[in-house]
Amino acid sequence: MALFHVRMDVNIPHDLDPEVRAETVAREKAYSQELQRSGTWRELWRIVGQYSNISIFDVESADELHEILQALPLFPYMDMEVMALTRHPSRVDG
Amino acid sequence: MALFHVRMDVNIPHDLDPEVRAETVAREKAYSQELQRSGTWRELWRIVGQYSNISIFDVESADELHEILQALPLFPYMDMEVMALTRHPSRVDG
Amino acid sequence: MALFHVRMDVNIPHDLDPEVRAETVAREKAYSQELQRSGTWRELWRIVGQYSNISIFDVESADELHEILQALPLFPYMDMEVMALTRHPSRVDG
Amino acid sequence: MALFHVRMDVNIPHDLDPEVRAETVAREKAYSQELQRSGTWRELWRIVGQYSNISIFDVESADELHEILQALPLFPYMDMEVMALTRHPSRVDG
Amino acid sequence: MALFHVRMDVNIPHDLDPEVRAETVAREKAYSQELQRSGTWRELWRIVGQYSNISIFDVESADELHEILQALPLFPYMDMEVMALTRHPSRVDG
Amino acid sequence: MALFHVRMDVNIPHDLDPEVRAETVAREKAYSQELQRSGTWRELWRIVGQYSNISIFDVESADELHEILQALPLFPYMDMEVMALTRHPSRVDG
Amino acid sequence: MALFHVRMDVNIPHDLDPEVRAETVAREKAYSQELQRSGTWRELWRIVGQYSNISIFDVESADELHEILQALPLFPYMDMEVMALTRHPSRVDG
Amino acid sequence: MALFHVRMDVNIPHDLDPEVRAETVAREKAYSQELQRSGTWRELWRIVGQYSNISIFDVESADELHEILQALPLFPYMDMEVMALTRHPSRVDG
Amino acid sequence: MALFHVRMDVNIPHDLDPEVRAETVAREKAYSQELQRSGTWRELWRIVGQYSNISIFDVESADELHEILQALPLFPYMDMEVMALTRHPSRVDG
Amino acid sequence: MALFHVRMDVNIPHDLDPEVRAETVAREKAYSQELQRSGTWRELWRIVGQYSNISIFDVESADELHEILQALPLFPYMDMEVMALTRHPSRVDG
Repeated sequence: MALFHVRMDVNIPHDLDPEVRAETVAREKAYSQELQRSGTWRELWRIVGQYSNISIFDVESADELHEILQALPLFPYMDMEVMALTRHPSRVDG
Repeated sequence: MALFHVRMDVNIPHDLDPEVRAETVAREKAYSQELQRSGTWRELWRIVGQYSNISIFDVESADELHEILQALPLFPYMDMEVMALTRHPSRVDG
Repeated sequence: MALFHVRMDVNIPHDLDPEVRAETVAREKAYSQELQRSGTWRELWRIVGQYSNISIFDVESADELHEILQALPLFPYMDMEVMALTRHPSRVDG
Repeated sequence: MALFHVRMDVNIPHDLDPEVRAETVAREKAYSQELQRSGTWRELWRIVGQYSNISIFDVESADELHEILQALPLFPYMDMEVMALTRHPSRVDG
Repeated sequence: MALFHVRMDVNIPHDLDPEVRAETVAREKAYSQELQRSGTWRELWRIVGQYSNISIFDVESADELHEILQALPLFPYMDMEVMALTRHPSRVDG
Repeated sequence: MALFHVRMDVNIPHDLDPEVRAETVAREKAYSQELQRSGTWRELWRIVGQYSNISIFDVESADELHEILQALPLFPYMDMEVMALTRHPSRVDG
Repeated sequence: MALFHVRMDVNIPHDLDPEVRAETVAREKAYSQELQRSGTWRELWRIVGQYSNISIFDVESADELHEILQALPLFPYMDMEVMALTRHPSRVDG
Repeated sequence: MALFHVRMDVNIPHDLDPEVRAETVAREKAYSQELQRSGTWRELWRIVGQYSNISIFDVESADELHEILQALPLFPYMDMEVMALTRHPSRVDG
Repeated sequence: MALFHVRMDVNIPHDLDPEVRAETVAREKAYSQELQRSGTWRELWRIVGQYSNISIFDVESADELHEILQALPLFPYMDMEVMALTRHPSRVDG
Repeated sequence: MALFHVRMDVNIPHDLDPEVRAETVAREKAYSQELQRSGTWRELWRIVGQYSNISIFDVESADELHEILQALPLFPYMDMEVMALTRHPSRVDG
């Protein structure tokens, strides 16, 4: 089990076909929700004032994380920053 | 209720008195654990390879957050990045 | 009640249809003025030499701020920097 | 009359004599409050999580602003960013 | 009277209509020369190797400066950096 | 099994006691060689002209990587950049 | 013999003809595999979450490296960062 | 006589007409070679892995340098960094 | 004759001996005024809110400029940015 | 044979013992001149207004370059930027 912190900044080109855009965003939402339900996409927040999110993924390995991220319908339009996380020594729980 | 994402990078000067250093780090840990137990410091992870953490605070207001952060014993030695969070439209829960 | 400092930098693509552009800018102005009249968009200045503004928002929560910002007609063409503000200890008024 | 937006980031060296530090911070506060009372230092906020402030100055000229800023007791320990402001065309008042 | 230092970097899109481009550049030149003759655009240099200039403006106020800058025909295609200037204490004259 | 790419930039303060420095560098070398022999520190190169290295670690998990990195005797004097790696689709082997 | 560390970030324009894109990516893969088989392109990893790779080239000279890199079918769409490597003094082998 | 160090990074838009591109690159080469033969463009190297060059110009004045640079056929598609050079005090010759 | 634009940012270490500091600043002022009187240091402004200046030097060559700059008593404590200037094509005079 | 472009920025701590400083700078000069005479340190210029140099090294390999650079007496006080060079296709000679 491995935890990764991912920031995604979305930049969809303004001249992308509106239907392609709507369909891509819809597929992104469905895929994200499927991963949330399975527990893989553990946390998902919107950053205030940005078309960006902060996410925590709970995966078997970095390889699994990459497969998930590059399969995101919005992947070609996103800048991603990925950081591996580990337990903090001041953490109170187990 | 408000959620804030905070990244803290710790830079303790190498010529700080070792006893002052140890005592400050100990107070930081105790204070952090008290806030975790009360539910205010909701998440706390270490970034792999860094003397840094990623935290989520759950506070009444930004004013409360500032009071907490500036009271951290390591505050004078940390660079902080604070971002307000909000619910993501693709979030499955609630 | 929460105060946020927002800098908005406007970058409208030069090949956007001139009518769409004019209509979007007009809607932005109307929406901004409505929020100013209600007291939510508390301060609004132009930065000299830039197609940018400095704003102060007075909102119930960060969630409300995000709803306001993403509803701005120019939102897709703006880079935003959001900072939470709190009372300064040297402030003279109550 | 001219409005300037100033961000001040305070970096007091950790090995500064504690008495000098306390006395300097006290003089900074007194000076700031005198300027607030005269209406020159029109706005003053603390940025959440930072030893930094956002200020608006209302001065006769940029020359007056510089005299005020360089006379700040903490001036040698602060990084400043100064921007001239002007009326925004969407502003509802005046 | 106020002095401002402005750096302008010109980035005209390569697919702009050549006639629009030529006409815009010609209007920019005429407007600049009119402001130079009136004494408002006090200094104007080309930076070697760049499609950029360094200028000094001598204006009544920052408001007047903004009106001048945003009326520049090339304004939509320029990045500007504006700094307020004041008398240097080592200056020999006046 | 997980592969991580780590860049380490060493910045030892020039006023560090020379004996402490020499002893720290010697312990770093011994620890590094032990990890190389066990196969954990899989690759290690010096960047030409820099007091920096590029390393590849082959670990069970990001948690193990963090334990290794923070135990490095030079850890307090290094800036680290950590990136998770995965198999490239054009890779010929395996 | 010389070792070089290369990071390649791929940015294919979204409006590139899909057939040209597919054909270019296919040629890139074939060329890369040929160089891997000859031992020149010694290491090749995907960075997790990025359309980027980390590579190590083993060449006769920097001149040979440049000929290889500029012949990559994706060269016009990649940002490259090249660093010369040398033996690390703590290296256990050879 | 004056020496200048210039780095040129070439970014030709991918949708530029191929014939215009080829003709521009050919004119650039001819112009560069003429200046090399006259001794003005004293040094010219390709940076490994980049569509960039490092050049040394030997000119009468900065004014002459600017005339040369802005007359380069690829000037509209290049980012330039210009630095004035002078004799180094450790130089052995002259 | 050559014109250079120089920005100087002064960073005097806070632990420098106060007498050394005062004497260095006094020598800097005397030297600067001598160069202003000879016409070499043609323009000198303070940037509002900064311990920085914007200067224009009128020298025979870049070599002369370097000799002047490195002889400044504050040279060891300043960051400098130097840009060669040339006549702007829209300039009305000469 | 391999050519490398190196920029060295010198930052000697202001509290370094003056004798150590003078002796280090003298050794640097002697070493540099020995390498210039052997043809290895092929070019060496001072950047105007900076305590920095631009150098070209002509070495057998990147390994030889690293040995030379790390043996520089000022190496601990310098930031270096190293770039491999290759023949430019527009070069007239050879």
